[in-house]
Amino acid sequence: MIIGTSPNRLDAVAKVSGKARYTEDLTLPGMRHAVLVRSHIAHGLVKSIDTKAALALPGVEAVFTFEDVPDTLYPTAGHPYNLVIEKRDVSDRRLLTSHVRHYGDDVAVVVARDPLTAAKGAQLVKVEYEELPVLIGYKEALAPGATVLHEFMDNNVLRHSVIEHGGRVDELMKEAELVLEGVYHTPIVQHCHMETAVSYAYMDDDDHIVIVSSTQIPQIVRRVVGQALDIPWSRVRVIKPYLGGGFGNKQDVLVEPIAAFCSWKMGGVPVQVALSREECFTSTRTRHRFDGQIKMGLKKDGTFTAFDVKVWSQTGAYASHGHSIAGAAGSKSPYLYPRAAMRYDATTYYANVPSAGAMRGYGQPQVTFIMDCLVEEAAHALKMDPLELRLKNVARVGDVCQFNHHTIHAAGIYEALTRGGELIDWRKKREAYKNQTGPVRRGLGVACCSYGSNTYPAAVELAGARLILNQDGRVTLAMGATEIGQGADTALTQIASEALGIPMDQFNTVTIQDTDHTPFDTGAYASRQTYTSSTAIADAARQFKDKILDLAALISGVPRSALSINGGNIVGSDGEHLVMTLGELAMQSYYNIDFGNPIVSEATHKTRQNPPVYCCTFVDVEVDVPLCRVTVKEAWNVHDSGRIVNPKLASGQVHGGMGMGLGMALYEEMLIDEKGKVLNDNLLDYKMPTIMDLPDLDCAFVEVPDPTNPYGIRALGEPPLVSPAPAVRNAVWHATGVKVDEIPITPKVLFRYLEKAGM
Amino acid sequence: MIIGTSPNRLDAVAKVSGKARYTEDLTLPGMRHAVLVRSHIAHGLVKSIDTKAALALPGVEAVFTFEDVPDTLYPTAGHPYNLVIEKRDVSDRRLLTSHVRHYGDDVAVVVARDPLTAAKGAQLVKVEYEELPVLIGYKEALAPGATVLHEFMDNNVLRHSVIEHGGRVDELMKEAELVLEGVYHTPIVQHCHMETAVSYAYMDDDDHIVIVSSTQIPQIVRRVVGQALDIPWSRVRVIKPYLGGGFGNKQDVLVEPIAAFCSWKMGGVPVQVALSREECFTSTRTRHRFDGQIKMGLKKDGTFTAFDVKVWSQTGAYASHGHSIAGAAGSKSPYLYPRAAMRYDATTYYANVPSAGAMRGYGQPQVTFIMDCLVEEAAHALKMDPLELRLKNVARVGDVCQFNHHTIHAAGIYEALTRGGELIDWRKKREAYKNQTGPVRRGLGVACCSYGSNTYPAAVELAGARLILNQDGRVTLAMGATEIGQGADTALTQIASEALGIPMDQFNTVTIQDTDHTPFDTGAYASRQTYTSSTAIADAARQFKDKILDLAALISGVPRSALSINGGNIVGSDGEHLVMTLGELAMQSYYNIDFGNPIVSEATHKTRQNPPVYCCTFVDVEVDVPLCRVTVKEAWNVHDSGRIVNPKLASGQVHGGMGMGLGMALYEEMLIDEKGKVLNDNLLDYKMPTIMDLPDLDCAFVEVPDPTNPYGIRALGEPPLVSPAPAVRNAVWHATGVKVDEIPITPKVLFRYLEKAGM
Repeated sequence: MIIGTSPNRLDAVAKVSGKARYTEDLTLPGMRHAVLVRSHIAHGLVKSIDTKAALALPGVEAVFTFEDVPDTLYPTAGHPYNLVIEKRDVSDRRLLTSHVRHYGDDVAVVVARDPLTAAKGAQLVKVEYEELPVLIGYKEALAPGATVLHEFMDNNVLRHSVIEHGGRVDELMKEAELVLEGVYHTPIVQHCHMETAVSYAYMDDDDHIVIVSSTQIPQIVRRVVGQALDIPWSRVRVIKPYLGGGFGNKQDVLVEPIAAFCSWKMGGVPVQVALSREECFTSTRTRHRFDGQIKMGLKKDGTFTAFDVKVWSQTGAYASHGHSIAGAAGSKSPYLYPRAAMRYDATTYYANVPSAGAMRGYGQPQVTFIMDCLVEEAAHALKMDPLELRLKNVARVGDVCQFNHHTIHAAGIYEALTRGGELIDWRKKREAYKNQTGPVRRGLGVACCSYGSNTYPAAVELAGARLILNQDGRVTLAMGATEIGQGADTALTQIASEALGIPMDQFNTVTIQDTDHTPFDTGAYASRQTYTSSTAIADAARQFKDKILDLAALISGVPRSALSINGGNIVGSDGEHLVMTLGELAMQSYYNIDFGNPIVSEATHKTRQNPPVYCCTFVDVEVDVPLCRVTVKEAWNVHDSGRIVNPKLASGQVHGGMGMGLGMALYEEMLIDEKGKVLNDNLLDYKMPTIMDLPDLDCAFVEVPDPTNPYGIRALGEPPLVSPAPAVRNAVWHATGVKVDEIPITPKVLFRYLEKAGM
Repeated sequence: MIIGTSPNRLDAVAKVSGKARYTEDLTLPGMRHAVLVRSHIAHGLVKSIDTKAALALPGVEAVFTFEDVPDTLYPTAGHPYNLVIEKRDVSDRRLLTSHVRHYGDDVAVVVARDPLTAAKGAQLVKVEYEELPVLIGYKEALAPGATVLHEFMDNNVLRHSVIEHGGRVDELMKEAELVLEGVYHTPIVQHCHMETAVSYAYMDDDDHIVIVSSTQIPQIVRRVVGQALDIPWSRVRVIKPYLGGGFGNKQDVLVEPIAAFCSWKMGGVPVQVALSREECFTSTRTRHRFDGQIKMGLKKDGTFTAFDVKVWSQTGAYASHGHSIAGAAGSKSPYLYPRAAMRYDATTYYANVPSAGAMRGYGQPQVTFIMDCLVEEAAHALKMDPLELRLKNVARVGDVCQFNHHTIHAAGIYEALTRGGELIDWRKKREAYKNQTGPVRRGLGVACCSYGSNTYPAAVELAGARLILNQDGRVTLAMGATEIGQGADTALTQIASEALGIPMDQFNTVTIQDTDHTPFDTGAYASRQTYTSSTAIADAARQFKDKILDLAALISGVPRSALSINGGNIVGSDGEHLVMTLGELAMQSYYNIDFGNPIVSEATHKTRQNPPVYCCTFVDVEVDVPLCRVTVKEAWNVHDSGRIVNPKLASGQVHGGMGMGLGMALYEEMLIDEKGKVLNDNLLDYKMPTIMDLPDLDCAFVEVPDPTNPYGIRALGEPPLVSPAPAVRNAVWHATGVKVDEIPITPKVLFRYLEKAGM
């Protein structure tokens, strides 16, 4: 049983020894470097642009402006294409624009022989603007008469949706014994992946553009570049090398189209676009700022009856993932308290701030913060223990979700909350932290959330796996699923190992995805890969084993029905007797001149199940009241993600997510002034938690196997960062008696709340 | 019908525009360059080696000598592995050696930051030798007591074989009404591919060595590097970019193992080995020098009854393809005059000259020269027209080859000879060139040959094809067959187009083979690819069409049995009514969220048929007797290669082959002195024909479809160069009355023969 054990990451040594080559470690002779000319205003029209000085700079080879690019609007979100027109991502972006909509928008691009010259050339491009009003918050952006950011729109509402199945929310609110309301706010944060956005493009012939890119979604990049350049998609090939983090930012098509455009226009010469950290902040994607109004109805015994959630999601200058973020959060949240009804009203609006896109959690951290804050309010109102209140309402196996009428086949959140309470010693500490009066106080908080295992039925769910038996008996596993640092290669190899009965060290796993070669997969996002790819592996493995054992029977004379694979060998009916090694069989498959064939199998799987997963966070915080400083002393995440493939890797994912979640709770926020200028576009001014800021991060797993997956697997990747922020907020309330309705809870924010509370 | 038409080469524009990237056009940051320290003697033992000065040179990073390499003997021939031990290629080579066996042998390697420093470093390595006797010709090498080149051998006979089925040759010679004998000699020539031997290797992790190489045989390189470094084969990945000619030299594992070794020892840093032209001459492979003794029996009416052929094939310092060259020629030749019996006695011997290996024709030009010279002798002896004599004896459909009892299902050599005679106006010119006496005389010559379509049953015959339906309705074709400049991509895409009913321009053909990704194929050699790969394509296409039409039936409601593909569309039973485009179907296969799957099919085919092909050459030469200079005024090749896929490409292959054949006839020979030193290791001193030396090269095809191939195809690649040399020799005889029994017929050689003839 290899699933459930923790072999080392396949890429561990390659990465720590520096052998792994990332996109910027690859190059081609004659590589050119492109630097974008970015707007230094947040909203305006280009009046004039002068490229002469840039073109005169020795080493500058080309300058392209918005006048040179195809007049084609294209989308950038890393979603599979949708056959339903209304469900397609919004096409609102040109390669370069004369109407700049955010600080750092793309006006022109300078291509030079080296990056410094390109940067210098970009500075020499003179742009004059006619400035337009800058809209930031949803009230300004949605105000009647507000300047409209996009010409094809009538206003700045990208989309508004109200979802309510059954239509009983208003009635339930009327019937409720207690109705609570709240208004909450979450900030813009940025992914801050270690490797910035980088791609290069080149052509080996007149027909194909090859793009090497740090991306989570090679197949989608291929399609979007095809759309942006208006060429058949199969003329684009995308290769993803080792990748240094994405967290959703690279689930978007960032610099690939402009790199491809430059190479295409320059006769196929290789052109690299490598963004600086500053550009990553202003000109890639961010997490959507959410403003939420929420109402809930309860019975006096604490039973939740209805939620009425209204959110404004700020997409910024361009749609990117558009309304999907707000939408996804709305569709995943009802699984947490499935017996309560829910109405979800969401508005996504354009504003003159950097574009928001996918980021780990995909709207769920925002909506969970909004909902969980009010749940905590309910515990206070009912004078119930917050843990007890949640336990009373969370999903149980067999619940039918009132929101979408799905039956929940696997749910371990009750057990997770119970276990987390034990681990942090909930009862004892809650009691101990009562009635504190000193300057430094402790508080205990809990929060919980639900999530999905992929995107079905919002989008198609496709995963592909190929298995090849090599001459040495080792098995090549080529996945469409992209290894982006999350450990997919290792987990999926474990699954293949289990599916085939062949030890891990007999696998040769292809880590570099290539759209011309590796099986189709839509990419790394939505915490989908282990869940969806495992079925593709199981399907491929079934065919693979059949081919192996058919040939083994032919060669050995042992009946097919007596044969199986065990420990990498072909064995008899007792499971032990060696009939032949895989290597011996493989040599026959290749080199027997009269029969046999190399053994290869490939399977693609469309998932049509999307089971919910659950997580809860418990934190113990210390609040230094005079300094308005919150320190997390202990933090636990307990997850129900079905069967865990590799506990060590899973813990790593949870620790990373908890760090991001605590950063969102206490430190991180992109600051944008009233003119739309980003004030902290670097890692000195934008505060991420470091190891000095965090306690030991602890986690546990409640493994409720999922019946819709061959190995009982559900999703894990994103949930770890969803519940830490509300848990911290609730703990601060517990410590201080003051509830903060926004994050991050920086000293500046906390000072305001404590001052208002008279402390 | 796309087979039989001549669309442009897929790579034409990429190559003429300079966009195509060859191995040396690719690089990686930090690339190191390795230069080999080569022996300047042809035979000896290293007494001492001093690397200090080289290591002290700034920029030199490592020097490896024979002391540093694995003590593993490995083979280098580009043959598939053989399950039968006796049939495996001889393992007689170490990565570096202390026993040098030819001028230019590999003693040590210097790795530096740039190629010039590496070359300078190589010069600084001081090597002292104990010299051993140098053996060149077969008489010296096989003399009793001759120094033995390889420690594991008792003498210098690599292998000796006598093949005679039926055993009636001696008896038939006795019964013959005429018995003729001859002794003939063919020279060492070199491939002179435009792109020299070049590879680089690197590691992205601790487990895998990636090799980018200009090779005809990526899968075999992978295996041999595994053998040379003594690591599992699947830990090696080989990528073949665009390639600038191989002609069999790159059907050998040349610089890949040493590049891989250096990278491996240096922690995975990329190391390139790019040989100079001089090194290609001395230290890659050459065409085997053959010495032949031949006897034939005839009836007075010109019927051939028996051939008794004895050849000595000089393999040089290392076995490389070993006895296969001599063996293959023996097995392919009997198909020309199949009704005659044949005994074939072949000896392959080691000698202190550069190693011979595969070269276009693979022994057949040599054996054809030997046999055809004597056939011409027979025409003289019988006073028969040489064309009539050949026509009387060549293979006809239904013949059973006396040598191996195979029935010949397709043979067009009679028609080819007839057609060639018409094209060159044989009768008229033979008559016109009679009784010439002036200093400049004309002569007409003919020669013919047989060849095979692959290597079966000598080795396994495997070809693989993968088809992928892209979203835009275009089809990706990924072959294991390597495009090496011969036009495989274009021809195989035509076949796929015909198999699927999808126009050529809807294909996206993958031109770069990669052992991790592209289907298995043993490589480009033995003129095998169109014949063997076409069946793999047909098999893959059958499955592909089934999947397409099954899904089309499901979506459209039109019954499966009414659907077909025509012109790239899915059509109804009338073959015209548009049911849906392939693009529409493809979009459903990918993006319908509930059903369908991306359409992919892959097939591997083991060929177990090897039909013979035929060629004849007609030349009209002018001999300037005082200058001893031969000029070819007109040359025709007429081929029977079954159905011709692309007449333009086929003509190109024929023209190239004829040029090489005429070069072998008149100009090319590697000169080696008695000390084993190569005297003309460059393209100034080694004379290749240029366009100034050649007439217009003409060709025609007699297309007798082959019943064992789905498209009637047989082989074409190598035969074009087989018969030109004897045709020229026969024409010179016709012009001058002097028969020259060796090639090349340089002025120096011709002077000797003319002088001897008293002219």
